[in-house]
Amino acid sequence: MTKKLNIGLIGYGFMGRTHSNAYHKVKHFFDIPYDPVLQVVCGLVEEEAKAFAEKWEYKSYVTDWHKVVEDENIDVVEICVPNNLHAEIAIAAARAGKTICCEKPLALNVPQAEEMVKAVEEAGVPNLVSFNYRRVPAVTLAKQLIDEGRLGKIFHYRANFLQDWTISANVPQGGMATWRLDIKAAGSGVTGDLLAHCIDTAMWQNGPITDVCAMTETFIKERMHTETGKVEPVGIDDACTFFCHFDNGSLGNFESTRYARGHKALYTFEINGEKASIAWDLHDLHRLSYFDHSDDSIVRGWRSIHVTDSDMPYMDKWWVPGLQIGYEHAFVHQVADFLQNLAEGKPTSPDFREALATQYVCDAVLTSAKNKKWETVKKP
Amino acid sequence: MTKKLNIGLIGYGFMGRTHSNAYHKVKHFFDIPYDPVLQVVCGLVEEEAKAFAEKWEYKSYVTDWHKVVEDENIDVVEICVPNNLHAEIAIAAARAGKTICCEKPLALNVPQAEEMVKAVEEAGVPNLVSFNYRRVPAVTLAKQLIDEGRLGKIFHYRANFLQDWTISANVPQGGMATWRLDIKAAGSGVTGDLLAHCIDTAMWQNGPITDVCAMTETFIKERMHTETGKVEPVGIDDACTFFCHFDNGSLGNFESTRYARGHKALYTFEINGEKASIAWDLHDLHRLSYFDHSDDSIVRGWRSIHVTDSDMPYMDKWWVPGLQIGYEHAFVHQVADFLQNLAEGKPTSPDFREALATQYVCDAVLTSAKNKKWETVKKP
Amino acid sequence: MTKKLNIGLIGYGFMGRTHSNAYHKVKHFFDIPYDPVLQVVCGLVEEEAKAFAEKWEYKSYVTDWHKVVEDENIDVVEICVPNNLHAEIAIAAARAGKTICCEKPLALNVPQAEEMVKAVEEAGVPNLVSFNYRRVPAVTLAKQLIDEGRLGKIFHYRANFLQDWTISANVPQGGMATWRLDIKAAGSGVTGDLLAHCIDTAMWQNGPITDVCAMTETFIKERMHTETGKVEPVGIDDACTFFCHFDNGSLGNFESTRYARGHKALYTFEINGEKASIAWDLHDLHRLSYFDHSDDSIVRGWRSIHVTDSDMPYMDKWWVPGLQIGYEHAFVHQVADFLQNLAEGKPTSPDFREALATQYVCDAVLTSAKNKKWETVKKP
Amino acid sequence: MTKKLNIGLIGYGFMGRTHSNAYHKVKHFFDIPYDPVLQVVCGLVEEEAKAFAEKWEYKSYVTDWHKVVEDENIDVVEICVPNNLHAEIAIAAARAGKTICCEKPLALNVPQAEEMVKAVEEAGVPNLVSFNYRRVPAVTLAKQLIDEGRLGKIFHYRANFLQDWTISANVPQGGMATWRLDIKAAGSGVTGDLLAHCIDTAMWQNGPITDVCAMTETFIKERMHTETGKVEPVGIDDACTFFCHFDNGSLGNFESTRYARGHKALYTFEINGEKASIAWDLHDLHRLSYFDHSDDSIVRGWRSIHVTDSDMPYMDKWWVPGLQIGYEHAFVHQVADFLQNLAEGKPTSPDFREALATQYVCDAVLTSAKNKKWETVKKP
Repeated sequence: MTKKLNIGLIGYGFMGRTHSNAYHKVKHFFDIPYDPVLQVVCGLVEEEAKAFAEKWEYKSYVTDWHKVVEDENIDVVEICVPNNLHAEIAIAAARAGKTICCEKPLALNVPQAEEMVKAVEEAGVPNLVSFNYRRVPAVTLAKQLIDEGRLGKIFHYRANFLQDWTISANVPQGGMATWRLDIKAAGSGVTGDLLAHCIDTAMWQNGPITDVCAMTETFIKERMHTETGKVEPVGIDDACTFFCHFDNGSLGNFESTRYARGHKALYTFEINGEKASIAWDLHDLHRLSYFDHSDDSIVRGWRSIHVTDSDMPYMDKWWVPGLQIGYEHAFVHQVADFLQNLAEGKPTSPDFREALATQYVCDAVLTSAKNKKWETVKKP
Repeated sequence: MTKKLNIGLIGYGFMGRTHSNAYHKVKHFFDIPYDPVLQVVCGLVEEEAKAFAEKWEYKSYVTDWHKVVEDENIDVVEICVPNNLHAEIAIAAARAGKTICCEKPLALNVPQAEEMVKAVEEAGVPNLVSFNYRRVPAVTLAKQLIDEGRLGKIFHYRANFLQDWTISANVPQGGMATWRLDIKAAGSGVTGDLLAHCIDTAMWQNGPITDVCAMTETFIKERMHTETGKVEPVGIDDACTFFCHFDNGSLGNFESTRYARGHKALYTFEINGEKASIAWDLHDLHRLSYFDHSDDSIVRGWRSIHVTDSDMPYMDKWWVPGLQIGYEHAFVHQVADFLQNLAEGKPTSPDFREALATQYVCDAVLTSAKNKKWETVKKP
Repeated sequence: MTKKLNIGLIGYGFMGRTHSNAYHKVKHFFDIPYDPVLQVVCGLVEEEAKAFAEKWEYKSYVTDWHKVVEDENIDVVEICVPNNLHAEIAIAAARAGKTICCEKPLALNVPQAEEMVKAVEEAGVPNLVSFNYRRVPAVTLAKQLIDEGRLGKIFHYRANFLQDWTISANVPQGGMATWRLDIKAAGSGVTGDLLAHCIDTAMWQNGPITDVCAMTETFIKERMHTETGKVEPVGIDDACTFFCHFDNGSLGNFESTRYARGHKALYTFEINGEKASIAWDLHDLHRLSYFDHSDDSIVRGWRSIHVTDSDMPYMDKWWVPGLQIGYEHAFVHQVADFLQNLAEGKPTSPDFREALATQYVCDAVLTSAKNKKWETVKKP
Repeated sequence: MTKKLNIGLIGYGFMGRTHSNAYHKVKHFFDIPYDPVLQVVCGLVEEEAKAFAEKWEYKSYVTDWHKVVEDENIDVVEICVPNNLHAEIAIAAARAGKTICCEKPLALNVPQAEEMVKAVEEAGVPNLVSFNYRRVPAVTLAKQLIDEGRLGKIFHYRANFLQDWTISANVPQGGMATWRLDIKAAGSGVTGDLLAHCIDTAMWQNGPITDVCAMTETFIKERMHTETGKVEPVGIDDACTFFCHFDNGSLGNFESTRYARGHKALYTFEINGEKASIAWDLHDLHRLSYFDHSDDSIVRGWRSIHVTDSDMPYMDKWWVPGLQIGYEHAFVHQVADFLQNLAEGKPTSPDFREALATQYVCDAVLTSAKNKKWETVKKP
């Protein structure tokens, strides 16, 4: 009989929903070695925590995260709160021996992140950072194609993450919906929120980034703060562009902004290799573009691969060829891998240490932008 | 407290999975007036029924569908079996007073379908046919735009449903995976399986079809039958093309095949109106193409609408703008609407009577192809 | 030294311009065995004929086409007038021993077309019908791929030609700009104007069409006639849909209309074969879509071939890879082939006889629509 | 009667062909105030110059460019030679009082470019630099939309120019076909060849660039030199990425490479404004993408504008809606504007002075890359 695994969720926002959904669905589609039980959800506002628990079938709810971490009944702690709370909770959970899945970015900054890595490694607890896009099937396929050597030597890695939701000066900072604009809660703007995703995927696919040169901008300098009720300076980066070298000699070009009118969540990447190239974007996440120079020249062109057949990563678990899955499914894949590895005593990538490498790049990017010069990335 | 609603599922194939998934998810995303409980699943092979029940958290399983229909504890019967079993089960369920959700096409043919309509109407039971594509948000949006009069007078309706999975002569007919190629189980080929979807959507969006002229073809004349173990004649239509008149004066052109290399499940439609046009396809189901002639001429062009914002049909229930949903979600929307209407004592479209109209068109199409002449469609 | 070839153009409308442009350009890009000299242009309105001659560097102009046909100095007669004048001019030109290039469709109807074929064959004059789309490089490439056997057995041929320029009831019929709406000048509507192109390409690529079943519609029943100044009945087909069988067992589905809002000149075709499929459209005429089932399954997808490399048909004559050519270039290719064949004493396809086969299909389509039943296509 | 204008072309390579073609075509499509006469072409190899003259209908040919510049009969000198010859020829032509059209980039470097500006301004001769992409109708339209204020405040300008033709180490440097890889002939690599185009368009559309930060790379360090016959160091930049500030506060991100497998000549730009965004690419140059935030939210999406209607820039001169033009046509538009302005005594943009501003940016980019720090752009 399958062993029960008790889940405690801290945070009931957007990410709290994606993680809860993943735990519910995973057992219907994957053969997993555990029966995950949604035990408790923790959120600041009691009424809302209660409503969330009912909607998502958690057995109980609390408003103090310490109760989750200290609960002996809990096996796994899911950290889905603003970035400024990650470190404290994760370190406490590690010390309490919990398995931890933490939302990205790992921390507000490198010192916090290093402490967190130290904590989980000293405690020896399984740990995972939720860089969910790695497990979008088309993205996983891209990694597979690179690892098979289909691209040959890599020359260029190009990634953007473009949004447009903060163009209006009336968008406030702080609070449940807009904490991402509050430097105290978020640590940075698009760098930690969006570029962290791009960097994680890029280093996973193309190896370490060695040095960076960045430019940031804050287009709207002051916004109403929902907590103080006053107009206050905006501390985050609204936009960030950087170029870099990878350890393998290829060049990187990354850009993120929340001022790209017309793009809601347009995460894109393109990789140019000697023999082939790959491109992907989040707005049509079920497709991968692929160009293979070895094709006969008269029929050579970019291929649009509809990543829905059963021989595609994860896709044997879902429907039939031609029928696409969506955003939420990457979280299901993440949980499926995490639980399988847990049963086998194996780590799941990206763990805290791997996420620390991304944090090093993010911090180097912000430092470079501040100092207006190249910055070497710390080696993990 | 929310009233429990006991669900009995008959059939554990592809559709059994989509319906089960919908019942699990609907409560996490929609505010529904019932608490659906997956009571029993029925399937022919006991071992498989048991496994399905475990995986999908049904409380029990049976191998004889009569037990579901006769079970006083069951409120809703979900019919997800091959077409040749729809009528018998639905009529029995109606007589037993069950609420019924039946997979499409409604029946093998018109006489069966008429009997089924009679049965549910005499019994006065709520009934629904699962033409799921109506509730893909982009398709629902298309209907909304038409109803708002944005297209003006309609001139053309064009729909295709193209697949390629039966090109190999080695694909057998009959059995769990390939009953759709067996005329006895399916009643027809692409006409009932694929064009029924196109016709349902078309009449919902553009009104009744009055007369049709069709051509069908069976490219591979004989296939191994999995039940008899012998090579037997293929009775279904591998491909079907028809054109027609709609009651509103517009022209229709429909085509379906399973021999369109490169297309897995490419359901497409395009509607050309005096003022605007709309196009959609299932391979990128989260997008709607829209051309509005009233745009300034220098910036006029086909718009690709990424149907993910919260003001789009159903999309306030899911994630954030830019993050797409997939194939399975239309079934969740269907269940959400069905349960809401059930609570309010209102019918949910398309019910059996509406599906009968689609059956009339399908039968007229097959008759026309057989007789090689125009055929008037029976009025519902 | 290159032999001079004297050209006489009859008609100075849209097609008169494309042919004149082709004769000017061909020598700069192709090595052709003649030096074409634009001797005379003929048009009804003297002032306009004169202006055209000046603009396009014709040595003279006339207003009576007999003068062109009877001019001993003229080698080639280009017929770019409305359809109702093709037969008379072509027959006279043939009898006068001229080489003839006639715009499509060949004639108003089959009897005329048969007479024209008889005339050129009896006179033994080189003759060509300007089905220009065959020589768009992507279309030529499609033919090449089919001939190489890359598609295998063909199952489906699908073509549309969609426009939207006659939706307004204020568009008149008759006259220089709108003779295509006047049944007397055009012979038919979209069938002769647009579907003739589709049919020509289709039979060239996929062989003879054996029988057809069609539906036509005239949405706007009366329009002002520019010649009579009165509102008169519209005699042409505004829209035409037909399906058919090809001699090779594949199925065809063709549709054309001038009421497809949003499409200006959207000629599309798609061919589904056992092993591969091809698709093309005129709005991006420099691309060909290609799906090859023999690709590794994980990197299989529709390829978008940018038909600009020097190993593509005709493309070694133009620019460098990545730089597209446009609509007019197909006419240049046509002239280049025509002149080369002329020098070698070889026919250029499609000649009058080949265009007659297309006329047979067009007439069968119109008859089928009128009689509302299948019609067998006359064999050439 | 139209005044004759005698043209002397120096250089018979790729650009020599585009300019010759433009002079031939312009009179057939535009009402121009001159009759351009192709008098003489100059090229190094007599045989080739002669062949070019014959093919392109030049009256004569020479092998020494001084003869063109000194020929009193010549009105306009077209400079279509490698970059290292621009300055000398242009300065001589200016001093000889010729009207000059020079290929881009203006010069090898800033000092040369400044001398050239000085020469043409002192001589008071009309002058033009052939940044042809400005006159692709979709690009011209983009400029028009920006000038109309449709985008509002601009936040981001993003441009790439991606090619893949030098990936093979076997491509040599130097000579007719590959002088662009020879630092002595080209002055720089992708920066002067490709980014110069992007920079010219960008500053035309979005105003001056004030400071830049760049990274360059030479992937293949040594190549055979066609002139010396020896393997020699490669001095050019194979790839260049830079970000920058525009004077209007917006951010720029530019990248160019010849190592982007799958892209032949993919010049792209995207401009994000407060109210709207625009995107374009050279591989489908007849389309413009446009997103207008003021659209009704349920029908808001990126529009693909098929820039072929007669109200589009330059398009009233060509064919009918839906029929695209190609790469070469931008050169025709350039000549049409140039001749019209010449007749009216007005300058044509971009003239040498405007091209000098682009040269300032290019040089700042190369300096920044070399010094690995931000560089302020010199003000014109």
